[in-house]
Amino acid sequence: MSQIIPVARALRGEIAVGEQVTVRGWLRSKRDSKAGISFLAVHDGSAFDAIQAVAPESLANYASEVLKLSTGCAVEVTGELVASQGKGQSVEIQASAVTVVGWVEDAETYPIAKKRHTFEYLRTQAHLRPRTNTFGAITRVRSTLANAIHNYFHERGFNWINTPIITGSDCEGAGELFRVSTLDLANLPRDGKGGVNFEADFFAGEAFLTVSGQLEVEAYCLAMSKVYTFGPTFRAENSNTSRHLAEFWMVEPEIAFADLADDADLAEDLLKHLFTRVLEEREDDMAFFQQRIDKTVIERLRGVIDNRFERIDYAEAIDILQNCGRKFEFPVAWGTDLASEHERFLAEEHVGRPVVVMNYPKEIKAFYMRLNDDERTVAAMDVLAPGIGEIIGGSQREERLDVLDARLDDHQKEDLWWYRDLRRYGTVPHAGFGLGFERLLNYVTGMENVRDAIPYPRTPGHADF
Amino acid sequence: MSQIIPVARALRGEIAVGEQVTVRGWLRSKRDSKAGISFLAVHDGSAFDAIQAVAPESLANYASEVLKLSTGCAVEVTGELVASQGKGQSVEIQASAVTVVGWVEDAETYPIAKKRHTFEYLRTQAHLRPRTNTFGAITRVRSTLANAIHNYFHERGFNWINTPIITGSDCEGAGELFRVSTLDLANLPRDGKGGVNFEADFFAGEAFLTVSGQLEVEAYCLAMSKVYTFGPTFRAENSNTSRHLAEFWMVEPEIAFADLADDADLAEDLLKHLFTRVLEEREDDMAFFQQRIDKTVIERLRGVIDNRFERIDYAEAIDILQNCGRKFEFPVAWGTDLASEHERFLAEEHVGRPVVVMNYPKEIKAFYMRLNDDERTVAAMDVLAPGIGEIIGGSQREERLDVLDARLDDHQKEDLWWYRDLRRYGTVPHAGFGLGFERLLNYVTGMENVRDAIPYPRTPGHADF
Repeated sequence: MSQIIPVARALRGEIAVGEQVTVRGWLRSKRDSKAGISFLAVHDGSAFDAIQAVAPESLANYASEVLKLSTGCAVEVTGELVASQGKGQSVEIQASAVTVVGWVEDAETYPIAKKRHTFEYLRTQAHLRPRTNTFGAITRVRSTLANAIHNYFHERGFNWINTPIITGSDCEGAGELFRVSTLDLANLPRDGKGGVNFEADFFAGEAFLTVSGQLEVEAYCLAMSKVYTFGPTFRAENSNTSRHLAEFWMVEPEIAFADLADDADLAEDLLKHLFTRVLEEREDDMAFFQQRIDKTVIERLRGVIDNRFERIDYAEAIDILQNCGRKFEFPVAWGTDLASEHERFLAEEHVGRPVVVMNYPKEIKAFYMRLNDDERTVAAMDVLAPGIGEIIGGSQREERLDVLDARLDDHQKEDLWWYRDLRRYGTVPHAGFGLGFERLLNYVTGMENVRDAIPYPRTPGHADF
Repeated sequence: MSQIIPVARALRGEIAVGEQVTVRGWLRSKRDSKAGISFLAVHDGSAFDAIQAVAPESLANYASEVLKLSTGCAVEVTGELVASQGKGQSVEIQASAVTVVGWVEDAETYPIAKKRHTFEYLRTQAHLRPRTNTFGAITRVRSTLANAIHNYFHERGFNWINTPIITGSDCEGAGELFRVSTLDLANLPRDGKGGVNFEADFFAGEAFLTVSGQLEVEAYCLAMSKVYTFGPTFRAENSNTSRHLAEFWMVEPEIAFADLADDADLAEDLLKHLFTRVLEEREDDMAFFQQRIDKTVIERLRGVIDNRFERIDYAEAIDILQNCGRKFEFPVAWGTDLASEHERFLAEEHVGRPVVVMNYPKEIKAFYMRLNDDERTVAAMDVLAPGIGEIIGGSQREERLDVLDARLDDHQKEDLWWYRDLRRYGTVPHAGFGLGFERLLNYVTGMENVRDAIPYPRTPGHADF
């Protein structure tokens, strides 16, 4: 009897040499020797590497099937696990049976037959790209990072809160909105004043896709003390850059009885934990990214893990940038936001490790951030990391109703009645931040475009699959 | 020096009596004795119970503040942890300081001041209801179940795949769709034939919210072997029932080289694992649900854990229902779907434990389910559980292109070109299922309405908060 095993278990040495095993997967490549032996690289997604199966011509279907196999075919291989003579692998399978489960219709037109494709091309084959080395590795690292995030919070007593995707509020203030509707566009109900009667829509009013779960998760923070969201968020911005998606996943923790310093500590501890875990758990995939995608990527993660994050005030950052002798494309002045070039200078050149910039001018930050005693700045922070710039943005929230109200207009006050309630009933200092998951994944893998960090990217003009 | 601790740690006995501790949270209740002592129940969300703090009148702010505290106020209490004399608690805090962090504006109008509110009322206070016993417990159980789901799959080599929320496909076939658009409804672009020009919309075509991640996750299954989605899904159905939400979370695993029997095994193993974990990890909350919400809930979960699920054919189920002597509201005949009354009869009375009904008539099931050799049925399954009926629905997928094509019309073939590709290139038998997370949570807690199983329910006419 042979046991069915994931390839990863054999490669990790968990199966003894001499055992009868069966692996099931897809052919990555095949080489037929003149001596009448075929070498099949069988991949099942469980590890970065395929396992080599050696198929002798004595197999009954050798000529009729094995010789005709091409990249992408699904196979089941049974045989003895043996020590490998070849380079780069410790074990291989001496096949006693090769069963073809699914053929590739035409090897010549298989869309990912060739070894090298551009990432742009592979985006048009989003349903097949996880079969490539790069996207298989991204998939495993993404899943590992996500699991590390959930467990980091769960083990520390945080509750995962599934904040709503559809929201009737248009006041969250982080960008342009997608409308969600069931109205018949060919036959819109009218309100008698020339406008659309949204009372007739599914939610009896206008509804949009969320840009952030923060406001809603704050309500849970003020009941459960430690909470986080981790879910999809949306921006209807017409941005065609390597850093923007219309649909992306965001991690947003929120902690009660906490100030901006606590927030920065949480951000630092979380990033260090995640990077440690991915280096441990996905050593094979990370070696690939290091070798083929970005030769600095492991060193960069180690730099985050091993160094205490610097903390500087925004005002100090402006001083540094103005007096560093460097000429920047964008001008530096108190009151303006930092551009990417400034952020990277601070993290990469001035400090040489991650840095948390704190206390920004209130005019450039959102209404919910806590006003500092100087009345010019708010308790906001950005975590800047070498190689990427901003990776986390957060703040202490304004917990004082009168101060919050002074930053809200009448429409916001009405729309956010429930958010204001949180300040009327048992308000406490609290803080949180947002971590864009695809940008994090790019940071970890060295991939450059967030479209390659999510299975099916949504961008202007693209909602395929 | 006192250490700041979550209430849960003190209640679990992890802090030695005699230690100086500080807890931070919200007042659940207060009792002032005539002897000049106040008993404060302080809750921080970390456990079901509050901790009792005993505040003597010798506190400097006793008359000015402590006596004025009301339910919902935020406090910080410092003192010695002592063995409790009172019933129902092992330890309490002998307070040496009580600091008021946030008042309740007016104790009389605090929306959740009273102990008992209807669940209907509390839905209008979705931002405050996690402060109640019931919704605090639901929040912790929900988060624990979610974490158990992620770890169940991660530990077994599954990858979590974030399938898209916005999709250009209208062929997923599970229900009515929400449109996602940035078009200006007051000024719609026209296509010259009286219709709307969707080329001008954000995604250069029509776009909708997903009803299921299954089709997209199948592509990852055929690369990674074992995958799952766990994310929000949407139905634009005008259903005002206790079992329907317009936005809900769904778990959808998909396994390669697997048939319907493997699928049923996975479903059984998953449910048993989840129920075991929640009973272990949230004993306090489950004791509350048992006592206050549904006196059968723990027994019901144990029944699932301890019994092997029965497996019967749909045809056999029809036989049983027709010959059981029971009069049903809906008629029973081969070719019709089972109604809830039939499902519950099978699970609760006929079998007395969970049952997997398999191989349904093809006419009542979706296009992607695998046609059986009888050509009348497909390899579909429903897992029926006592007390709820259907809890999981799944199938083996049709992996043969010609058979699949025979069930698709031309529009579907065009829209699902990429899904058909999966059958052209290395196709393998594969299977999966869907588990509605809110229905699962109701099953676990005994709550009756799915609107109480999600933080901010979205239903016809409601997208508040």
